[in-house]
Amino acid sequence: MREVAIVSAGMTPFGELWRYSLRDLFVEASLGALRQAKADTVDAVYVGNMSGGQFVGQEHLGPLLADHLGIRGVPITRVESACASGGVALRSAFLDVASGMSDLVLAVGVEKMNDGGDVTNVLATAADQENEVYHGITFPGLYAMIARAHMTQHGTTLEDLAAVSVKNHRHGALNPKAQFRQEVTPEQVMASSLVADPLRLLHCSPVSDGAAAVLLCPLARAQEFTDRPVEIRASGLATSSMALAERRDPAFLDAVSLSASRAYHMAGLGPADIDVAEVHDCFSIAEICVLEALCFAEQGRGGEAARTGETALGGRLPVNTSGGLKSKGHPVGATGIAQVIEIFEQLRGEAGERQVKDAAVGLTQNMGGSGGSSVVHIFERV
Amino acid sequence: MREVAIVSAGMTPFGELWRYSLRDLFVEASLGALRQAKADTVDAVYVGNMSGGQFVGQEHLGPLLADHLGIRGVPITRVESACASGGVALRSAFLDVASGMSDLVLAVGVEKMNDGGDVTNVLATAADQENEVYHGITFPGLYAMIARAHMTQHGTTLEDLAAVSVKNHRHGALNPKAQFRQEVTPEQVMASSLVADPLRLLHCSPVSDGAAAVLLCPLARAQEFTDRPVEIRASGLATSSMALAERRDPAFLDAVSLSASRAYHMAGLGPADIDVAEVHDCFSIAEICVLEALCFAEQGRGGEAARTGETALGGRLPVNTSGGLKSKGHPVGATGIAQVIEIFEQLRGEAGERQVKDAAVGLTQNMGGSGGSSVVHIFERV
Repeated sequence: MREVAIVSAGMTPFGELWRYSLRDLFVEASLGALRQAKADTVDAVYVGNMSGGQFVGQEHLGPLLADHLGIRGVPITRVESACASGGVALRSAFLDVASGMSDLVLAVGVEKMNDGGDVTNVLATAADQENEVYHGITFPGLYAMIARAHMTQHGTTLEDLAAVSVKNHRHGALNPKAQFRQEVTPEQVMASSLVADPLRLLHCSPVSDGAAAVLLCPLARAQEFTDRPVEIRASGLATSSMALAERRDPAFLDAVSLSASRAYHMAGLGPADIDVAEVHDCFSIAEICVLEALCFAEQGRGGEAARTGETALGGRLPVNTSGGLKSKGHPVGATGIAQVIEIFEQLRGEAGERQVKDAAVGLTQNMGGSGGSSVVHIFERV
Repeated sequence: MREVAIVSAGMTPFGELWRYSLRDLFVEASLGALRQAKADTVDAVYVGNMSGGQFVGQEHLGPLLADHLGIRGVPITRVESACASGGVALRSAFLDVASGMSDLVLAVGVEKMNDGGDVTNVLATAADQENEVYHGITFPGLYAMIARAHMTQHGTTLEDLAAVSVKNHRHGALNPKAQFRQEVTPEQVMASSLVADPLRLLHCSPVSDGAAAVLLCPLARAQEFTDRPVEIRASGLATSSMALAERRDPAFLDAVSLSASRAYHMAGLGPADIDVAEVHDCFSIAEICVLEALCFAEQGRGGEAARTGETALGGRLPVNTSGGLKSKGHPVGATGIAQVIEIFEQLRGEAGERQVKDAAVGLTQNMGGSGGSSVVHIFERV
């Protein structure tokens, strides 16, 4: 396999972007990445998108992107793995370059959620339609059950859950692209509206529009496009059972653990080598479970990490310096690429007020559904 | 890049399969491929599916397939390019093996269309939502405009169009997996209900359920799984403009031409080297336009091919020996893989009554929308 680097990035703000259509979003992000690298065209594109069909009546995003980005003819593949679609798009782009098929490949993630779609029900199509959704469950309900299991088994507290939101809002307040740029207090989190007990509004990531794009090429050619490339050292993808009820332990995310161990093995690195990470905090409990599955925390102890400041900026391992899904926003297909952009900028020393000092190795973890799929990438400053 | 082979295949019948759910379909096809190769598991899976979300409320097919096929943990990626989703799944699987990331990779295509979904409107999400669908156009209407343009520019006749349906039904009558196993006459075609002038019911592929799967591995390992592997010599993918109105010539399919020239170049082969081909005859006019874009016929002369018998079994270049989308059926995400299976079986000498004598090199062409995307693969008997 050829070594692969990221050489540029582009991203829209995340938020309720009523003036942007789906096509506007992915074009703006893609153009940003192309311009940063001074590239006119690319050899291939991978688009991560969960459900353009259900949200805005648009599947078949390949030719649409080709048209509006002015690159008609270029091979474009849309990939989907629910909220992990962006991470999977990066992986597909990585394999395309690694294989030797293509040199310059764009990985884009996009979702237009605020356009009249029935968002809760569209998102529910990422769960098991016959065994979960038919019976009325939604994602806040699924993650509430995960939270209850974690609290019962490990003594995780409402304060632990709130600390994740507080930390991520504090980070997001420093991110000009974030949907919510204000801090919240533990008291505000615990007094916010109950969504699905024990999860309250401020434990939940929002409904967002947005797009993000990164440009990949063989590491050997990276200097043509930037003097600060970031190498993709590893890609790990895994599945678990779709339905929560079929998991051996609903509070442990098998797919995350497996995708991480594949990535660590491929990179020849371990959790202790990671300087900064972006993980999938669609709900505050998710960040806690993910930290454990990534071996950043012992099993059952993930709840302490945010509360003790370990995962905050300035802590031992800063997690979600971008604000995470909670504060930055969660346009589901775009999230996986936005995570990569935060790590790309951290490793280039471009993260401004959010900069983690001397960050050399970073990790992203992006998840689909209630953890049925997970994709982990490890990056290193060249 | 490593050389890649197909070593086994599995497929459900195509048709109105009311007793099969989406998950039943892809499991049956996948198990067929695994059993034929005597493989218990795989390193990765790519699933081509156009719109499980809209048809049956199910996105995130990766973990669902992992669950029901009994391979939890395996990395699974869903890819989509409208009706070219199956062909794009094969390409992604090919790149995964070629890159060296995975050895044994399953490429599955699946679609469950008969389950209460509003099929015409779901399919329309493969067209340009803002510039085409909003104004009321559907796919029969788009292809009717392509047919009118071809008739006007090149003198193609209603008899030419009918001859495609007649040929493909004659082939499909010999295929035990086909949805329609009866022959039709030119008179029947021309007397069938008008759908979108000049296209009649018997010019249109049906609404179908079905799944198809093939197993790929490095050519160097193929003999572990079969003594008759088929090599994937080339993969070409291309886009064109999404909206028909933006094409330079609505009767010429640029994306097909470009995807074919990429594949011919990669294989070091030309149209004259192809012994048998499966092409995307979603409407009879599509086969005519595709033959021209693949350089199997001169531009404007594609209408003669079926009428003169050139593309029939026993002709110079048999096309759609499986019955094509018209007679075999068109479960949109499955079609691209089903085409590959027909070529796989032809090159192995397993096509029974449909066998093309001494077929050594075959081609598949799978198309999305009104030709906004196209993927071409070339295969060779080892």
